[in-house]
Amino acid sequence: MKPIQIAEKKDEDKVLKDRMSRIKNKIIVMSGKGGVGKTSVSVNLSYALALMGREVGLVDIDLHGPNIAKMLGVEGQNFTGSDNGIEPVRVLPNLKAASISFAAANPDMPIIWRGPLKMSAIRQFLEEINWGELDYLIIDSPPGTGDEPLSACQLIPEVSGAVIVTTPQDVSILDARKSVFFARQLKIPVIGIIENMSGFVCPHCGKETPIFKKGGGEKAAKNLGVPFLGRIPFEPELVELADRGIPFVSEGLDGIPARAFMEICRRIEEFLSEKGTGTPHSRS
Amino acid sequence: MKPIQIAEKKDEDKVLKDRMSRIKNKIIVMSGKGGVGKTSVSVNLSYALALMGREVGLVDIDLHGPNIAKMLGVEGQNFTGSDNGIEPVRVLPNLKAASISFAAANPDMPIIWRGPLKMSAIRQFLEEINWGELDYLIIDSPPGTGDEPLSACQLIPEVSGAVIVTTPQDVSILDARKSVFFARQLKIPVIGIIENMSGFVCPHCGKETPIFKKGGGEKAAKNLGVPFLGRIPFEPELVELADRGIPFVSEGLDGIPARAFMEICRRIEEFLSEKGTGTPHSRS
Repeated sequence: MKPIQIAEKKDEDKVLKDRMSRIKNKIIVMSGKGGVGKTSVSVNLSYALALMGREVGLVDIDLHGPNIAKMLGVEGQNFTGSDNGIEPVRVLPNLKAASISFAAANPDMPIIWRGPLKMSAIRQFLEEINWGELDYLIIDSPPGTGDEPLSACQLIPEVSGAVIVTTPQDVSILDARKSVFFARQLKIPVIGIIENMSGFVCPHCGKETPIFKKGGGEKAAKNLGVPFLGRIPFEPELVELADRGIPFVSEGLDGIPARAFMEICRRIEEFLSEKGTGTPHSRS
Repeated sequence: MKPIQIAEKKDEDKVLKDRMSRIKNKIIVMSGKGGVGKTSVSVNLSYALALMGREVGLVDIDLHGPNIAKMLGVEGQNFTGSDNGIEPVRVLPNLKAASISFAAANPDMPIIWRGPLKMSAIRQFLEEINWGELDYLIIDSPPGTGDEPLSACQLIPEVSGAVIVTTPQDVSILDARKSVFFARQLKIPVIGIIENMSGFVCPHCGKETPIFKKGGGEKAAKNLGVPFLGRIPFEPELVELADRGIPFVSEGLDGIPARAFMEICRRIEEFLSEKGTGTPHSRS
């Protein structure tokens, strides 16, 4: 049996490599701590790049708390099969998404899986989903430095870079530093740190309260010698939009967070083009 | 070799069982989503129970983002050895804590471990730490329904109950529901749901903004038929205190969050005493 198993393994690796070779940039979005807005960043980054005319795929490897479907307003949709594998869910003509929630019958049912099963699910997402030709594959990982980001980074032949999300508070920064060292150990370039939930402007009196403090992300980036991509201010409207499945960078939403985010996208594309990967549809 | 291995395994199980038999109540604190304040709840729950005169242990099984040391103001302390195993770090005379951060030399270094290694670390925390006689062992788990909470629930002979933390926003509730079903599948009683970060009162104008909305946790508890333990209002001071390593239930801090939290502790003790486990030092 052994030679057959090896042959199968080789075929599998070839299929995975072929799929990934058709994707120009693979960006993993990470955070040390949960709840810092990692999924919000992944969703809005994918959406913003799609609005800029890029071909984008978004894969949700947070198997225990898959929230991209809800945040993109495509809850309840399911994968379909085709001759070319599993078809991802289309959010926009040039934005495709894959999440375990597109395969689960009951959204309340937890995925009580240990590492090896999770690795095989992530492999399926990368290998069997018909991603086609993409400028970007955005990988939304669960918080921490465990099985899921490790599996993704080891399965994808060449990860273009990691975007690390943090809030300005100390406990979050502490964990974000770990993510930077995680990327370094796996030889993945750190594109930069995004400071999320930065400051809060009271809608009643207009005065700012630094709920989760402010500036910590920028300071950490400087200390660690990695780029600071920008800060996204904290507005309660963002929570409401996320719950309603509307990315805050959607057309017509021209608030401060959306503008801050577009600037962050510009910096990410700049980082990647300097590294020579560029984007085929670049209009800048 | 096999008979020896089996003998060793049996001895191991006996040691674990002995340690755990000396702990009256084991409470696992869970959340579906990260960043909802699970560690803050674990830390303040442990501290509040200790202030109420109980013998308390707090074990941090979030190996990738261990934050209890920072939040308890015992950062930089290390485990010590003794004849009875590994000595936990003492926070108060009647509050002991164990976290991977007490064993790690460099706080920036990420723990890049897969499931099996994590299970063995968690087993060590339960089996080799000299917990002694305790009224409560509070288990702070990482978000989700993966390896860590699964390992803890399978290793501990009898978990008294699960406390589930959520913010009021929809995406958090979605994941909290998963935690309730996780507990049910593992036959662990659900002590109840805590709604954290509920509302925000502007320190400038005194008006409330429901940043992460309000009431979602209570609604979810009602829907799922589990107790609602209470809501903790969102005050920026809480973030500041956490970063400074001061539990907000500390003596002298008599704000609304502290009072809300004491009421939550009372409900938890009530739930456990109705289940017949009670507490030896109960003064009520």
